Amino acid sequence: MIIEGLLTTVDAAGRLNVAPMGPIVHADFQQLTLRPYRGTTSFRNLMDTRQGVFHVVDSIGVMAAAAIGRLTELPATVPAQHVTGRVLDDCCRWFEFRITDVDTTHERSEMAADVVHTGTRRPFGGFNRARHAVIEMAILATRLHLLPQDDVEVALKFLTPAVEKTGSAEEIAAFEMLRQHVRRFYAQEQSA
Amino acid sequence: MIIEGLLTTVDAAGRLNVAPMGPIVHADFQQLTLRPYRGTTSFRNLMDTRQGVFHVVDSIGVMAAAAIGRLTELPATVPAQHVTGRVLDDCCRWFEFRITDVDTTHERSEMAADVVHTGTRRPFGGFNRARHAVIEMAILATRLHLLPQDDVEVALKFLTPAVEKTGSAEEIAAFEMLRQHVRRFYAQEQSA
Repeated sequence: MIIEGLLTTVDAAGRLNVAPMGPIVHADFQQLTLRPYRGTTSFRNLMDTRQGVFHVVDSIGVMAAAAIGRLTELPATVPAQHVTGRVLDDCCRWFEFRITDVDTTHERSEMAADVVHTGTRRPFGGFNRARHAVIEMAILATRLHLLPQDDVEVALKFLTPAVEKTGSAEEIAAFEMLRQHVRRFYAQEQSA
Repeated sequence: MIIEGLLTTVDAAGRLNVAPMGPIVHADFQQLTLRPYRGTTSFRNLMDTRQGVFHVVDSIGVMAAAAIGRLTELPATVPAQHVTGRVLDDCCRWFEFRITDVDTTHERSEMAADVVHTGTRRPFGGFNRARHAVIEMAILATRLHLLPQDDVEVALKFLTPAVEKTGSAEEIAAFEMLRQHVRRFYAQEQSA
């Protein structure tokens, strides 16, 4: 089972990085398989420090903004308790982990991690179609250079009604931000 | 914000009904607007008893089966504490409610409800793309008679990769059950 959430890591100087991450979750969150792409800040920080914090979240604004590099302000955090790292104030649950094994053979690395501490902030709100549409669109938005434009247009068309019908202002704004990101990408491609 | 989950109601004889329901959630679950279609068992039971239990869930097998009338065995329940009704053993949170206002002007009724008691069983697992793909497909499966077949085929094609890439056996089986339901529907339409 792959769970989409937010990963916080710090570099040697203690600088915080926040990124969307979809780890494979084992044994009810006792172990994670993280799969950061090489070349990302998450990858570098995890290689250097071998620890971090994965968060189950239910608001999608930060995930959407981080996916397209528009996280202008870092979200509030507190120090992690059992690893060197930071825990998001705004999350449902968090999982402090240590990396036990690294495979960098492929462009998308694989890192096995043991969860060493976990905490709960608040209950998850439940299945909301708009939130998931935003997550699908955020994942697509990071892969525009790999995907046929037709596929992206089909996705936009398919996902829009769920956002409009079931979302609150946060989901509608996040989806619109992603839609504009897609539009800018194709406008630049055409003018290039 | 609309949250997709499971509604339990009972009739005057105490018979349990379990159905997917996507109420509008107000004030962090203090009020719900339920929108059962007239003609459904949920609608009749709510009109008769004016009470029920809404559940936030994170497993999708029951939702998928109930959506297409294939819930062969009712899930385990215990009595609700503050309303006449039943609480699912397998849920994340539940909300016992009383109907305060009913509007049956339209085919899809609107019922305002006050949540009078709530409880938590276990934390929600987090965003999983396959679970949401199953929910999208379950919603489509209940509307096959209203939708162009092309739209349904686009949805199946769009949703399948997320199920295969991110789901566990439960999500893969539920999606396959829905896919077969869709195939049977169109096969019967062609032969009719």
